[in-house]
Amino acid sequence: MGQTVGFIGVGIMGGRMAKNVLKAGYAVQAHNRTIAKAEALRPQGATVAASPREAASGADFVVTMVADPSALAAVLEGADGAFAGCKAGTLVIDMSTVDPATSQTMAGKARGLGLSYLEAPVMGGPGGAEQGTVTIMAGGSDEDFEKAKPLLGAIGKKILHIGPMGQGSVMKLTANLVSACIVTAMAEGLVLAAKSGLDPALVVEVLAERAPIIGRAGPKVLAGDFSANFPLKLSHKDVQLALAAARSAGVPVFSLAAVAQLQVAALAKGFGEQDQAATVQVLEEIAGVKARRR
Amino acid sequence: MGQTVGFIGVGIMGGRMAKNVLKAGYAVQAHNRTIAKAEALRPQGATVAASPREAASGADFVVTMVADPSALAAVLEGADGAFAGCKAGTLVIDMSTVDPATSQTMAGKARGLGLSYLEAPVMGGPGGAEQGTVTIMAGGSDEDFEKAKPLLGAIGKKILHIGPMGQGSVMKLTANLVSACIVTAMAEGLVLAAKSGLDPALVVEVLAERAPIIGRAGPKVLAGDFSANFPLKLSHKDVQLALAAARSAGVPVFSLAAVAQLQVAALAKGFGEQDQAATVQVLEEIAGVKARRR
Amino acid sequence: MGQTVGFIGVGIMGGRMAKNVLKAGYAVQAHNRTIAKAEALRPQGATVAASPREAASGADFVVTMVADPSALAAVLEGADGAFAGCKAGTLVIDMSTVDPATSQTMAGKARGLGLSYLEAPVMGGPGGAEQGTVTIMAGGSDEDFEKAKPLLGAIGKKILHIGPMGQGSVMKLTANLVSACIVTAMAEGLVLAAKSGLDPALVVEVLAERAPIIGRAGPKVLAGDFSANFPLKLSHKDVQLALAAARSAGVPVFSLAAVAQLQVAALAKGFGEQDQAATVQVLEEIAGVKARRR
Amino acid sequence: MGQTVGFIGVGIMGGRMAKNVLKAGYAVQAHNRTIAKAEALRPQGATVAASPREAASGADFVVTMVADPSALAAVLEGADGAFAGCKAGTLVIDMSTVDPATSQTMAGKARGLGLSYLEAPVMGGPGGAEQGTVTIMAGGSDEDFEKAKPLLGAIGKKILHIGPMGQGSVMKLTANLVSACIVTAMAEGLVLAAKSGLDPALVVEVLAERAPIIGRAGPKVLAGDFSANFPLKLSHKDVQLALAAARSAGVPVFSLAAVAQLQVAALAKGFGEQDQAATVQVLEEIAGVKARRR
Repeated sequence: MGQTVGFIGVGIMGGRMAKNVLKAGYAVQAHNRTIAKAEALRPQGATVAASPREAASGADFVVTMVADPSALAAVLEGADGAFAGCKAGTLVIDMSTVDPATSQTMAGKARGLGLSYLEAPVMGGPGGAEQGTVTIMAGGSDEDFEKAKPLLGAIGKKILHIGPMGQGSVMKLTANLVSACIVTAMAEGLVLAAKSGLDPALVVEVLAERAPIIGRAGPKVLAGDFSANFPLKLSHKDVQLALAAARSAGVPVFSLAAVAQLQVAALAKGFGEQDQAATVQVLEEIAGVKARRR
Repeated sequence: MGQTVGFIGVGIMGGRMAKNVLKAGYAVQAHNRTIAKAEALRPQGATVAASPREAASGADFVVTMVADPSALAAVLEGADGAFAGCKAGTLVIDMSTVDPATSQTMAGKARGLGLSYLEAPVMGGPGGAEQGTVTIMAGGSDEDFEKAKPLLGAIGKKILHIGPMGQGSVMKLTANLVSACIVTAMAEGLVLAAKSGLDPALVVEVLAERAPIIGRAGPKVLAGDFSANFPLKLSHKDVQLALAAARSAGVPVFSLAAVAQLQVAALAKGFGEQDQAATVQVLEEIAGVKARRR
Repeated sequence: MGQTVGFIGVGIMGGRMAKNVLKAGYAVQAHNRTIAKAEALRPQGATVAASPREAASGADFVVTMVADPSALAAVLEGADGAFAGCKAGTLVIDMSTVDPATSQTMAGKARGLGLSYLEAPVMGGPGGAEQGTVTIMAGGSDEDFEKAKPLLGAIGKKILHIGPMGQGSVMKLTANLVSACIVTAMAEGLVLAAKSGLDPALVVEVLAERAPIIGRAGPKVLAGDFSANFPLKLSHKDVQLALAAARSAGVPVFSLAAVAQLQVAALAKGFGEQDQAATVQVLEEIAGVKARRR
Repeated sequence: MGQTVGFIGVGIMGGRMAKNVLKAGYAVQAHNRTIAKAEALRPQGATVAASPREAASGADFVVTMVADPSALAAVLEGADGAFAGCKAGTLVIDMSTVDPATSQTMAGKARGLGLSYLEAPVMGGPGGAEQGTVTIMAGGSDEDFEKAKPLLGAIGKKILHIGPMGQGSVMKLTANLVSACIVTAMAEGLVLAAKSGLDPALVVEVLAERAPIIGRAGPKVLAGDFSANFPLKLSHKDVQLALAAARSAGVPVFSLAAVAQLQVAALAKGFGEQDQAATVQVLEEIAGVKARRR
């Protein structure tokens, strides 16, 4: 193919995605704050860049996959940032989950520098990133979307153009708010059932039919394993972004607001680095029961 | 097989289930308050009973599938009730969704009359009832569960013995509370996205990956079709039973409580006979937007 | 005056009210389940009745002041109940806090026996009962209200005829739901302020200007004194009755629903016999801070 | 006394406060964005300043009373801002309601310019501002508080030093969150009672005993008068600041979160400029009843 991708942020998600980009025949210039994570991609054929600027240097595409709006600003802007390294016409594709305003601001800055910009957050978790089956929800112009499509096709399966800049982010926040609500419903139902004497394993088996995320998160709760698939603190960040988006759109979201407060309680308990399902422990503590495999 | 089943309540769910019982070779004595629904089973080989008592007469099993605890009491008790018609040792299987206390009370009365009793609520909706793929969550003794298993196997696919009497009901309420939360999350997310300018059809396509119920309910919302798959008033009945169960178990359920109030608002608007997804209309009205296919 | 009052339920509230009735010159026939509480009124001139029936015997008025609907049924109905002891035309005045349906049912039974019935719940707590300054919210006919007015005037200060039977109960539940919300708001605000480093005593001083109940409950929280002024379990009972009334009236009550769940959490922690302000301890435990006087 | 006060922001609250400062013998240099409001103070002896800078020029104290953090930054910073006009050692007293971080930021900037800074938000509304009876909740150093005390004593009655910079704001937000919860509880209770057939005027009379704010807001609801005492949009701003403060402090506030969503609904309906009690109209619309004087 002969095209070069500057890939910035090759952690749990980004690393798996970059491997699929390499497999598809792109040259990859990988950068990560913890540089060892970029080094890990060398055997697959990546070159390692010392800074976001270096990763962007000469690239046809820059892909960013970082934690939040401030991390995104940190890798795009400034003397060592990707914007500074891009040649004219490079298409910058942010695949992180940020708020619509951040996407719009960054896109404006890119445009001012003669660059193109697409937001393209993903859904599907590490498993989907590994297998190249994530869903990608892009926001930006038709032209940039068409240009990015082959590259995105190497990363995900369902590649959707949601609308103009910012709408990809709204779609992602909407998807994550629904997940947070489902996980909370599982937590409430599971603790209710456990306290009522039911076998938690049987309950998870039944509830897993309701939503795939319960099929993934439920068995881990049964095992008392709260290692993060999606960390609570990131889920809460997205829930807060969704609450803010709903507020400015003028849409009351009563159940999401309750979910957010249960997350606040779990964060206060120190569960931020654990999986978003860690909220179940707040209810378990209050109810005096544990929903574990017997 | 040569066994006879008194089947009481052959409406949207029960009628489909009774057909599968007939197909499996059981003789069926069908009764329904609106007797025409029982008549409709004659071509499949059912006989029609004029009362619950008559349906139970001489039967090996009595199956009840009615709307709520008071409807159940009405078909089981009294001079024309099924209990009065049963021969000693008949196994009465209630497949309605009721609260645990109702199951325990009815089981006690059955026992007092020399009858056996199993609660066996189902999950899967009219589609699952039609195809015989519902999940059945039984509560009662091992002996009664084993005795019922072949018959239940004609009705559903996953046949689970959840625990002693009452626990089948708790499991069902738990499953329904999770569904109500998912449908509410869909409503909040969908209206937020629509108000933010996204194409509702695209949003439903993405959210449907989150839960099968969104895949079923979402497209109907897009079409403005609120005909009931599961009526709001029945969903709310179950949510209230779940809230009551959580209260007596000592489990706070903050998000379910918010869901319940949104349902109260939708009921106040007169949407009780519509699908449980009708709550979306309350949010649409407040936000001044409709999440319909463009 | 020469009139006789059968006073049933002379506990924390009823005992103080009965003393004011005695002071006003009525003859009082006092009964209480724990009979010692009735005995305690002998020095003030009461006679002690061994049963509700005996308390009602020959009385012009029967006043009941008990814990809840089932306690009310227990003292009014049955062979030893007050109804059985009343002469024709006696006016039964229930001053307990019950739901509207209970008042209507009991009033119907009284009428069937040739008796009159007034619901007349009170607001003001033990302090108001002591000083005869409670507010009384009556439901029933104009005639019965006028007949009861002099007696009620001995017990309370503001004597209101809210409307027909049941509306006195709705008014009382409404007043109690507002109190529960205020106490919860105090709890949330106090823990937020304490966790932010403010002196809890100063916070209570400021918040007490917002509502008299904060002026009463706040200083007790500062002292770690959760002895009941109004026990959490009774507050929760009323909140549940209010939620049920709102549900059947078709009024969504989102904030009350959240308050109810925080109470469920506090009840699960075993705080039912403590004051309704005990919910603050749930938040303190989660936040890891105590809002106590320094 | 001979001291001069630069008073910036002389609207509904600030204008009344400035009059009391004039009465106490201070010279006042008044500025307001809508300059006519400053002109209105001329008869009382104020001089009118064309800019915040001019108002601060030569003053011993600068008092700011504006709408929110961005309005505060606008009057303090920049070439025409108050900071630019202050002589060394001037004590800047911000009496607006802002978040703690804003106070800390502004105080830091003042310090950097050789100025002193005190946050001193007030509670009590236009009535209290008129009569000089507001409660003042100051945050800052002991020294600055002592220096400000005589001036603050001309404006309010209860003058409290809550703690270091930022804690005055937390106290004010806490007080406002409690008010918002009380007003919401009134709304829920009032609509429930009205829908149940009670006379709304009687209900307000009873509930007014619960909290002074119900005594003020309730009669206006009965009259259908939603003119702002405290506008919903400002109440919601404070509720959002309180939610954010609770989130960072690690304190779950379930009932406040529900209150916030009801406010979002009312804002979506266009009630932002109305009184915070306007939320009652959302519930009235859903319930199909109006809580008006008959």
